[in-house]
Amino acid sequence: MAFTYTRKINYYETDMMGVVHHSNYIRFLEEARCAWLEYVGIPMREIEKRGYTIPTLEVDVKYKKHVTQGDILAIGIRVTEYNGIKMRIDYDVKNVNTGEVVVEAYTTHCFTTLQLKPINMKKYDEEIYTKFASAHMSKE
Amino acid sequence: MAFTYTRKINYYETDMMGVVHHSNYIRFLEEARCAWLEYVGIPMREIEKRGYTIPTLEVDVKYKKHVTQGDILAIGIRVTEYNGIKMRIDYDVKNVNTGEVVVEAYTTHCFTTLQLKPINMKKYDEEIYTKFASAHMSKE
Amino acid sequence: MAFTYTRKINYYETDMMGVVHHSNYIRFLEEARCAWLEYVGIPMREIEKRGYTIPTLEVDVKYKKHVTQGDILAIGIRVTEYNGIKMRIDYDVKNVNTGEVVVEAYTTHCFTTLQLKPINMKKYDEEIYTKFASAHMSKE
Amino acid sequence: MAFTYTRKINYYETDMMGVVHHSNYIRFLEEARCAWLEYVGIPMREIEKRGYTIPTLEVDVKYKKHVTQGDILAIGIRVTEYNGIKMRIDYDVKNVNTGEVVVEAYTTHCFTTLQLKPINMKKYDEEIYTKFASAHMSKE
Repeated sequence: MAFTYTRKINYYETDMMGVVHHSNYIRFLEEARCAWLEYVGIPMREIEKRGYTIPTLEVDVKYKKHVTQGDILAIGIRVTEYNGIKMRIDYDVKNVNTGEVVVEAYTTHCFTTLQLKPINMKKYDEEIYTKFASAHMSKE
Repeated sequence: MAFTYTRKINYYETDMMGVVHHSNYIRFLEEARCAWLEYVGIPMREIEKRGYTIPTLEVDVKYKKHVTQGDILAIGIRVTEYNGIKMRIDYDVKNVNTGEVVVEAYTTHCFTTLQLKPINMKKYDEEIYTKFASAHMSKE
Repeated sequence: MAFTYTRKINYYETDMMGVVHHSNYIRFLEEARCAWLEYVGIPMREIEKRGYTIPTLEVDVKYKKHVTQGDILAIGIRVTEYNGIKMRIDYDVKNVNTGEVVVEAYTTHCFTTLQLKPINMKKYDEEIYTKFASAHMSKE
Repeated sequence: MAFTYTRKINYYETDMMGVVHHSNYIRFLEEARCAWLEYVGIPMREIEKRGYTIPTLEVDVKYKKHVTQGDILAIGIRVTEYNGIKMRIDYDVKNVNTGEVVVEAYTTHCFTTLQLKPINMKKYDEEIYTKFASAHMSKE
């Protein structure tokens, strides 16, 4: 399954080096993830309305190139692991103008109640479980 | 009543102009406000444990000078209006090294339940009301 | 002149009250301003390439309603003062779904070199001066 | 070499889950890194005055526990690799009140000119090189 999220870099996302501060990419990945969740029919609002949320367990980001204010990023996203308890998502972030890879990253997530107790999505909500499973399988 | 909060500027708070991004001062004012609330015995945690919170109604910031990474700010804070329903706080933000005024600001606030329904602190919690009233009066 | 910028609220822009943190609106106003600058043919990049920038002198924001993750804002923008030295911009921020006014705000700005020395745009760059002047007048 | 940086969580660093947003830890690590640089006599300002900077090549963060507004973090920091071209720093982030590990992380960095061209610190600035090398060795 292919999904790409694009977004422009804001002035306030730069730092005194003149480029995007590295912490902001974690936020761009979240934006891409939420856009992808909407795309596959599981918007965060729906997830939270059903009483779940999707905390982040790990973030790994490799910085390759810099971008700055006004540049446009294309963030490709794919689910590379999923079993209803844990999910891994891989990202490649490109500069739309140059085609260069700016960042390579992955994040891992679990599923919890809104009180942050871990759950197995398969047991708690078959419908949501299946949507994630389809997103995972469809990438192959 | 005199209260001053000091804090150092972080690298990630600068932008490509090489100085603190103007949006961050709103956050520094909140830090100063929370430190002051602790100082007068009304930490935000206690407020929220009792079922209230203190949303911001207005922010007005006048930018006078720039500061950058590693500079230290001293934020003076005083309550200039308070009646249990609404509160106005005035701030002067100085660069500790130069003594120059960096920012002059005020914020206004109301009091609400955690579901964001407005309340009159005087009716809901006399103890908290009195602490705020003392902070207000003691400045004169 | 009418210009409206729309953008969706990200998860990381909320706080523990469950709504957008008030400091983030300052950033949304900057986004709207930069989008408007592009629209009138004066993108920030072009400004900075010519050796100028547009620091913020004052920010005033009145918070009327809350929005949260997934909500969409429409930010209307208009130049209400401009003389080549100083510029005032007014904003109304609406929740697209409800039509409600979320925030009313204005910002004032000057023009400076990249070393932050104030300049009179009329003397330094007639072409840019005129574009801003047209944007100002065309609102009437 | 042991160095620990402590800092309190601000309200604006929480999100609608009621806990610190995961992107903010990247910023806390930078704060700890800058405080450590000062501690070993190489403040960022000095580095940049000499014409260098220290971009981030990789960030890896494992999230173990949540903290929220008012909690205090103790961030332990140690240099685990260093050769003048590349540096790896490891961090353990603890909740001061509970003693629990909140986050385990590492970052890798290179050294560049202010125009972001990679340099070998050993060739460009022996004094700075030696300070980093001492910080590295002294941990063993």
